[in-house]
Amino acid sequence: MAELKLHDLEPSGNCYKVRLFCALLGRPLNLEPVDLMGGAHKRSPFVDKNPFGQIPVLEDSGVVLRNSQAILVYLARKYGDESWLPIDATGMGEVMTWLMTAENEIARGPADARLHDKFGFKLDVHQARENAAHILGLMEEHLAKNNWLALGRPTIADIACMPYVALSHEGGISLEPFPAIRAWITRIKALPGFISMPALWDAP
Amino acid sequence: MAELKLHDLEPSGNCYKVRLFCALLGRPLNLEPVDLMGGAHKRSPFVDKNPFGQIPVLEDSGVVLRNSQAILVYLARKYGDESWLPIDATGMGEVMTWLMTAENEIARGPADARLHDKFGFKLDVHQARENAAHILGLMEEHLAKNNWLALGRPTIADIACMPYVALSHEGGISLEPFPAIRAWITRIKALPGFISMPALWDAP
Repeated sequence: MAELKLHDLEPSGNCYKVRLFCALLGRPLNLEPVDLMGGAHKRSPFVDKNPFGQIPVLEDSGVVLRNSQAILVYLARKYGDESWLPIDATGMGEVMTWLMTAENEIARGPADARLHDKFGFKLDVHQARENAAHILGLMEEHLAKNNWLALGRPTIADIACMPYVALSHEGGISLEPFPAIRAWITRIKALPGFISMPALWDAP
Repeated sequence: MAELKLHDLEPSGNCYKVRLFCALLGRPLNLEPVDLMGGAHKRSPFVDKNPFGQIPVLEDSGVVLRNSQAILVYLARKYGDESWLPIDATGMGEVMTWLMTAENEIARGPADARLHDKFGFKLDVHQARENAAHILGLMEEHLAKNNWLALGRPTIADIACMPYVALSHEGGISLEPFPAIRAWITRIKALPGFISMPALWDAP
C-alpha cells in the first residue's frame, strides 16, 4: 500500500477533515507536523510544496496537493467508491455545493471566529459571528429535513462541513439552538472508523 | 436540446462564469434576470430554489443547483468532455484546488473589494485589498510558469478564477503589476466561443 503523507497540524479543522476521511476509508496516513508557530509554513521546503503557505498538504506517490476540500475530492476519487463522491453530473454537483459552503460560508463564519478566539488572529470577529449565525441557520433548516447534507447519505460534503461547525464553541458560538445540526454531528460520529480531534464538540 | 435556465444578474461575476462556460460549450442558455435591487433573491419563489438567497442558480430538466463553482462542475460533467474537468483523482484534484481559490481567496479579495466599491457593500475594503494583493501575487507567480491554472490546458479552473480577477479595477485594484495574469486573461479571451461582460478588463 503506497504511503500517504499529510503535512498536518493537530488543532486544524482542515487537517482533521483529511485525517477523518482517511480513517473512514481505512487508509493509513503518515502525519508530518508542520511548525506553524515557528513559521515553517511560510518558507522552504514547505512553500515549494504549497506556495499558498497553508496546511494541509497531501503527498501521495509524487502527487502534491493543497486545500482540504480538493484533498477530499482526490481521496474519494482515488481510494473511495462513488458513494462518497459520485461522478454523474447531478450527484457531483450537489456534493460540490456543500464543498463550496465549507470553503466560503463556514470558513468566514465559525472557522474565522475560532481563529480569532483560540489562535488570536486579528479579524472582525463580530462579522464572523454574524456570518456563523447565518450559515448555521441555513444548515439547521436543511438538516431538519435531511439526515445528510447531500444525496441522502454520507458524502465528502459532510466531512468537509462538519469540523468547523462542530468546533463552533471554540469561536464563542453555541450549537444549543441547532438540534438538527447536533443530531447530524452525532450521526457522523457513529460512522464506522470515525476518529475525533481535540476539543471536538461532544453531542449530548 | 433541453433548455438550460440561469437565474442571472448581468454585472455578477459569478453569473458571468456560467454564461461564459455555456458559450464555450456551445450550449444555449435561457437567462432569467433576478431583481436583486427589489430583494427578489431573499423571498419566494427564489429562496425555494436556493435557500442561500444567492445568484446564480441553474435549472436543467428538474435539477436546481446553486453556487457558480458547483454549476461549472455540473456543466462540465453533463455537457463538457473531460478536457474541462477530468475524473481521474490527480487531474480532478488539481482543478479543485483552483475552484476553491475562486470560492475563498478570490472571493475575499478582488470580489469583496468590488462589492464595496461598485455596489456599496459594508465590508472591510482594506482587508479585501490586502487579500487581493496576496492572491494576485500568488497567481502571478503561478502563471509566469504556466499558461493555464491547471493541467497545462484550459479547464473550469480558469473559468472560475478569471472573472473577479479581470474585474479587479472595479474594486480599486490595478492589474498593471501582473503581466502574467494579464497574458492569461488574453489567452482566455481568445478561446473559441468566448463572450465578454460589462466592464470586463480589456487586455492591452
